Amino acid sequence: MTQPIPQVKVGFIGLGNMGIPMAKNVLKKGFQLIVWNRTLSKAEEFKGLGAEVASNPKEVAERSDIIITMVASPSAVEQVVMGTSEWPGLIDGISAGKIVVDMTTNLPSVSIKLAQEVKKKGGEMLDAPVVGSVRPATEGTLTIIVGGKKEALEKARPVLEAMGKKVIHVGENGTGCIMKLFLNTHIHTMMVSYAESLALGRKAGLDTATMQKVISETVFKNYISDLKGPKIVGGDYKPLFTVELMAKDMELALELGKELKVPLPLLSAARDVTYATISFGNEKLDNSAVALAYEKLGNLKFKSE
Amino acid sequence: MTQPIPQVKVGFIGLGNMGIPMAKNVLKKGFQLIVWNRTLSKAEEFKGLGAEVASNPKEVAERSDIIITMVASPSAVEQVVMGTSEWPGLIDGISAGKIVVDMTTNLPSVSIKLAQEVKKKGGEMLDAPVVGSVRPATEGTLTIIVGGKKEALEKARPVLEAMGKKVIHVGENGTGCIMKLFLNTHIHTMMVSYAESLALGRKAGLDTATMQKVISETVFKNYISDLKGPKIVGGDYKPLFTVELMAKDMELALELGKELKVPLPLLSAARDVTYATISFGNEKLDNSAVALAYEKLGNLKFKSE
Amino acid sequence: MTQPIPQVKVGFIGLGNMGIPMAKNVLKKGFQLIVWNRTLSKAEEFKGLGAEVASNPKEVAERSDIIITMVASPSAVEQVVMGTSEWPGLIDGISAGKIVVDMTTNLPSVSIKLAQEVKKKGGEMLDAPVVGSVRPATEGTLTIIVGGKKEALEKARPVLEAMGKKVIHVGENGTGCIMKLFLNTHIHTMMVSYAESLALGRKAGLDTATMQKVISETVFKNYISDLKGPKIVGGDYKPLFTVELMAKDMELALELGKELKVPLPLLSAARDVTYATISFGNEKLDNSAVALAYEKLGNLKFKSE
Amino acid sequence: MTQPIPQVKVGFIGLGNMGIPMAKNVLKKGFQLIVWNRTLSKAEEFKGLGAEVASNPKEVAERSDIIITMVASPSAVEQVVMGTSEWPGLIDGISAGKIVVDMTTNLPSVSIKLAQEVKKKGGEMLDAPVVGSVRPATEGTLTIIVGGKKEALEKARPVLEAMGKKVIHVGENGTGCIMKLFLNTHIHTMMVSYAESLALGRKAGLDTATMQKVISETVFKNYISDLKGPKIVGGDYKPLFTVELMAKDMELALELGKELKVPLPLLSAARDVTYATISFGNEKLDNSAVALAYEKLGNLKFKSE
Repeated sequence: MTQPIPQVKVGFIGLGNMGIPMAKNVLKKGFQLIVWNRTLSKAEEFKGLGAEVASNPKEVAERSDIIITMVASPSAVEQVVMGTSEWPGLIDGISAGKIVVDMTTNLPSVSIKLAQEVKKKGGEMLDAPVVGSVRPATEGTLTIIVGGKKEALEKARPVLEAMGKKVIHVGENGTGCIMKLFLNTHIHTMMVSYAESLALGRKAGLDTATMQKVISETVFKNYISDLKGPKIVGGDYKPLFTVELMAKDMELALELGKELKVPLPLLSAARDVTYATISFGNEKLDNSAVALAYEKLGNLKFKSE
Repeated sequence: MTQPIPQVKVGFIGLGNMGIPMAKNVLKKGFQLIVWNRTLSKAEEFKGLGAEVASNPKEVAERSDIIITMVASPSAVEQVVMGTSEWPGLIDGISAGKIVVDMTTNLPSVSIKLAQEVKKKGGEMLDAPVVGSVRPATEGTLTIIVGGKKEALEKARPVLEAMGKKVIHVGENGTGCIMKLFLNTHIHTMMVSYAESLALGRKAGLDTATMQKVISETVFKNYISDLKGPKIVGGDYKPLFTVELMAKDMELALELGKELKVPLPLLSAARDVTYATISFGNEKLDNSAVALAYEKLGNLKFKSE
Repeated sequence: MTQPIPQVKVGFIGLGNMGIPMAKNVLKKGFQLIVWNRTLSKAEEFKGLGAEVASNPKEVAERSDIIITMVASPSAVEQVVMGTSEWPGLIDGISAGKIVVDMTTNLPSVSIKLAQEVKKKGGEMLDAPVVGSVRPATEGTLTIIVGGKKEALEKARPVLEAMGKKVIHVGENGTGCIMKLFLNTHIHTMMVSYAESLALGRKAGLDTATMQKVISETVFKNYISDLKGPKIVGGDYKPLFTVELMAKDMELALELGKELKVPLPLLSAARDVTYATISFGNEKLDNSAVALAYEKLGNLKFKSE
Repeated sequence: MTQPIPQVKVGFIGLGNMGIPMAKNVLKKGFQLIVWNRTLSKAEEFKGLGAEVASNPKEVAERSDIIITMVASPSAVEQVVMGTSEWPGLIDGISAGKIVVDMTTNLPSVSIKLAQEVKKKGGEMLDAPVVGSVRPATEGTLTIIVGGKKEALEKARPVLEAMGKKVIHVGENGTGCIMKLFLNTHIHTMMVSYAESLALGRKAGLDTATMQKVISETVFKNYISDLKGPKIVGGDYKPLFTVELMAKDMELALELGKELKVPLPLLSAARDVTYATISFGNEKLDNSAVALAYEKLGNLKFKSE
């Protein structure tokens, strides 16, 4: 574990459900922090914690060495980096030696394009999406997958290690994004598949709890069955990671599939079940609530009477 | 662990890739064994190992206490139990106290119907499909999921424990089958999903080995990524469990879905990729060879040049 | 048009929604008719019309020259031809020169197998499924697609022309079935696709009636948009052809796909929407009621307020 | 039929396979024409026909009354209207009374946004996508579906009638786009479904030509079976409308589905078959070449030996 270097000044843009605990972990490690957020009120909260608040992304870049972005979508990253008609972007504050670390789940094509812009100004960009949702973000135990120059990663590593317990370098710019989309494609399809499989067994007469117990005693037990199975058994859809965020992730992977013209039939089918889940009014629930879609699609109830 | 009771005489029908090692494990535990197989030559091999060979299923039933069936399909089970125009079935040899243990991956509807026939003759039937393929069958470490009367299971347990390290009772007749189809639906969809996910990442430029390495370092690692990922990375499709057997399993689950009118969109999509794999000539390879279908569907190669 | 030959005696098995009007048309043309039906009450109705009622399929075969079967499924055809433990089948009454004309939507594999059995007894079998539902059955305007020996067809033609306006010979035994499954695959997928397409436009804000009007003015207008579009516009799901019959047809085509290992991804997806429609309680409505599934899946209403 | 008013000056942007014959038809009706195209060489060809060539979209707008755009994608329309860093857009040349008629297959969201921009400058915009490909574009027999103000349409009608035989007004801005995406969703799914259905029948042993002949004699005959069936029968994939354009159309409809969160399972499945077709190297062939994908997916040949 590298020793944190508190004299490094860290910028942070994107104070959402993930960004807030991540930024707090950076603060806790003793880094100076300067934040900006579209909705200013969220940034104000950080004043009380010792952070500075910038008035736009450009200012964040000017006043930081390493700038973290953790925003909602590829187009949000693009706006934060390149600016909009309302505020100047990071790019206008980048100079030699500064490093932008985009931790958003981003499209590789967008990430690569922005990295080129940052390089033109003498900076470096890393794409560093995370594995893990709010709990590991809070506990500082995210896994961080990094694309971009190794030297830039080494400079940013102490900051990343404030947020994650594992930092994995996978290649040049964009590769972090691709790796994240690979993982998401698999894990989100698994989520829907698990609900589908339980639906089949349930309709055929098994107790959901029995199926959950049996799989957990076999080699087939997995992250989804361990974490999401109990939620379906208990009908407890309090969100760890929402249906709507899963839909967004799925569409990003499908967007990459579209760029590359790779058929993704399972992911497409999983996305359609996810949209059905949203149509049934469950957008804000945990993504395991795709089970609620199967309850309707299969006319069954996961809970035993 | 219950102590085996060698005086119990065990019948065994179905000496295929799974049945052979399973029957051998029964022999090794000291049970008397009487076998029958459609293709007689396979049964003959067992003579040298100390087993008797019956001339038809009826005779197996007459001369055994517990009769194991491990055959190719629901209709094969039905023929073995009920007989055909060429040979009499188990049913004609069943009398009070005898137990038929069907370890085939069977349809619950077929299993329940046959169990009723066996009961009419004073016997009991268990559906006891297995988790695990040739290696655990050989090592006697299968997981066996059992539906049917608990008392019947207790009598059959020593025989089952000769073949498996874990025996899980899940409910009445048919529930073992359902549980197996639930597990298959999930695990086979996961297999195809993993190939699909790797295909997306590979086409976008990542090394297959890098993806394999990264997932194995995350909480997302699972049975498929652990067992099948290295095969795709290495292009080694020597079969542990063939594409054609996976296709057969998928169709059984879809058959149950059809009986219940439950939509199974992910499994259907996975089945279609599996048929494409077969069309490309890879029927006899390991089921991880669905990756070869994605190579064609996405115009990519998993091996780096 | 061949002249009907009233001295030919026609057997008819299967007095369902389709069979009743078809059998009545045979009577109207002056043929002697002998009927049998599992549910006897339906056969009794035909007594008043001048038909005889047999006590089992064997007797129908014995007393007829040409025997029509129009039953619910391949296994129902198999039972009618081969018999069950409760009643003897047609096969026991077949002798040289008799012709079985199966008009059920049957599997080619089952049809070919039964044709061989009939031939062994000196008879001939034709598979002669129909295009058209209750109205053309009533009006005698069905299209009849025939597989089997041409000579047998020529003998049966007057009877077929009593029921249909067009009789098309397509090849040897089984080809009529295949042709029907080919047509069903396309037309049922089109039905679901039309509902899906309307759902997209409706959710985006168009009136359903406007879409219906526009497509009807383009080259894209087709049987489904003409016949089923107005039902969706009007929310009138009174059945011409039920959701449950469509589901049955789809499963037959998928069964053929399974035998041949041909992926049918669009049909599978259409089948899943159809099962959702059934889960939503609309099994007995017209198959255009798949639109009701899209209303739920997409959270929309086809009717304008 | 309204009489053309030659004194109206028409701008035309987008001289592709569709745009060239469309622009020529405008010229033939006696309208003054001023063209611009990204690839300038294509515009130069029009000089010899009596058209003027502008140096950028702004100039087209300044010098025309009615400006047609027929470009490759929503983002291309956006660039042409709003300009890029390299050239000023139409918007800078719009003043009161000018009408932009976008005939591109566009997203309604993009079309509505641009219409608002045009209105701010005193102009009007119509979305007017077309039904029909190169042949009707050449013959001036396109069907044109129009969204936007009726008054604007009346002014533009003579120009539209130079290109199409039928002009249908469907509602406010964006509705033309939605109608087009509705029609595309259905017709492109039908294309893939027809190939899938033929594949099933062919693998089961029917001649492709026989299936084609039979469907053409039934009520199920349709635009796809009439126009595309003979191409599959003959193995003649000379493009009327390419696979790659169909893929693009499908993605636009799926993009709308994504904005609205409407599941489109059949279209998604059809898109995946289309990507497989592209992976097999058939991007530039006629869209009926999805049949070539089914040949591989089902290991069959549509041509009889």
